[in-house]
Amino acid sequence: MMGVFISIEGIDGSGKSSIKEGILSFLQDYNPVGVREPGGTFISEKIRELLLDFKNSSITPRTEAFLYASSRSQLVDEVIRPALEAGKIVVADRYIDSTLAYQGYGRGLDLEFLEMLNQLCTGGLKPDLTILLDIDPEIGIKRRRGKKEDRLEGEGLPFQEKVRAGYLELARREPERIKVIDAGRSLEEVLNDALAAVSLFLQGSGLNEDRAR
Amino acid sequence: MMGVFISIEGIDGSGKSSIKEGILSFLQDYNPVGVREPGGTFISEKIRELLLDFKNSSITPRTEAFLYASSRSQLVDEVIRPALEAGKIVVADRYIDSTLAYQGYGRGLDLEFLEMLNQLCTGGLKPDLTILLDIDPEIGIKRRRGKKEDRLEGEGLPFQEKVRAGYLELARREPERIKVIDAGRSLEEVLNDALAAVSLFLQGSGLNEDRAR
Repeated sequence: MMGVFISIEGIDGSGKSSIKEGILSFLQDYNPVGVREPGGTFISEKIRELLLDFKNSSITPRTEAFLYASSRSQLVDEVIRPALEAGKIVVADRYIDSTLAYQGYGRGLDLEFLEMLNQLCTGGLKPDLTILLDIDPEIGIKRRRGKKEDRLEGEGLPFQEKVRAGYLELARREPERIKVIDAGRSLEEVLNDALAAVSLFLQGSGLNEDRAR
Repeated sequence: MMGVFISIEGIDGSGKSSIKEGILSFLQDYNPVGVREPGGTFISEKIRELLLDFKNSSITPRTEAFLYASSRSQLVDEVIRPALEAGKIVVADRYIDSTLAYQGYGRGLDLEFLEMLNQLCTGGLKPDLTILLDIDPEIGIKRRRGKKEDRLEGEGLPFQEKVRAGYLELARREPERIKVIDAGRSLEEVLNDALAAVSLFLQGSGLNEDRAR
């Protein structure tokens, strides 16, 4: 595939959407494609509504994992893969690592089962580079204060701590792909580090403007 | 598991819901549990709405398979497995074979992928007995005439023919579990054959009233 696929991961309040906007704006000459999970297509946004609605508290962890896989499957087929095949840069707010961190380390589902599910729903498409925004969940929760919570954000501190530890474990397993950035600092500092990681990767990837545009 | 799990399969218009009602009524002393797919739980019914709505024509075959898996996962965890563990008889209108027949033989998705998905979303729970109501799709379509179609029923004759052929192939692969019944006859004749198959199975299964009640 010709394009470059960057994902941004981290617990709630780690600043993923601000960093994503910063990266998209930094890469604007490449006409990058920004997506978010769950969501990003007509049907995936409907699945997002199901997943995040507090009324749906009966969803089992396994069903939750399958609904994320449904949303991701559609997003990959409809948006991410076509964009990469056209040589574009795709920047995703959450992707396969969220499944492992939240449904695996957070909810306690079997990691092998989730890795199989990730493989099936993406056809094996992994990000080239993943920016992990690491933050103390207490700070993350404070940052979100005043914003309306969804079903998963409402899980509380112990859950977010398990998810954070899971993310760090994933980064230890794949240090080449997953770059950990301390997100407990100012947005400017975090964005600087994120842009440095992206620049370094793009230099190494051989992506040039002729191919990307 | 102590209970007995019976699924009913077949293309649209083959009479699944009437036969299911007939079997439930025949087994009423056992206090059986009837379910339908997609659906059968609060969240699965919401997934059903997504799947069957004509507005959602952008759903890819792979996403469709994942949404069925989501609905099935919830139904198994919330209803089917607890009922079987309590020693009950469960009668399901559609289950894993629908995924293979529709998304596999009908839509052309890889059967191995779908079998893996079925395995993951059910934790390996297969029906003890499957009644396949086999019918010429032209007759099935005529039977449904006048009823409002959903997104999958609207696929037309060539699709239904592929699904029918797929079902028959599945029955050839698992003749012990899947019993084929000619559903092109009167409801009474079809129900008689279905009840005979159920009775024969229950006699062989050693299920007695003490356990089932």
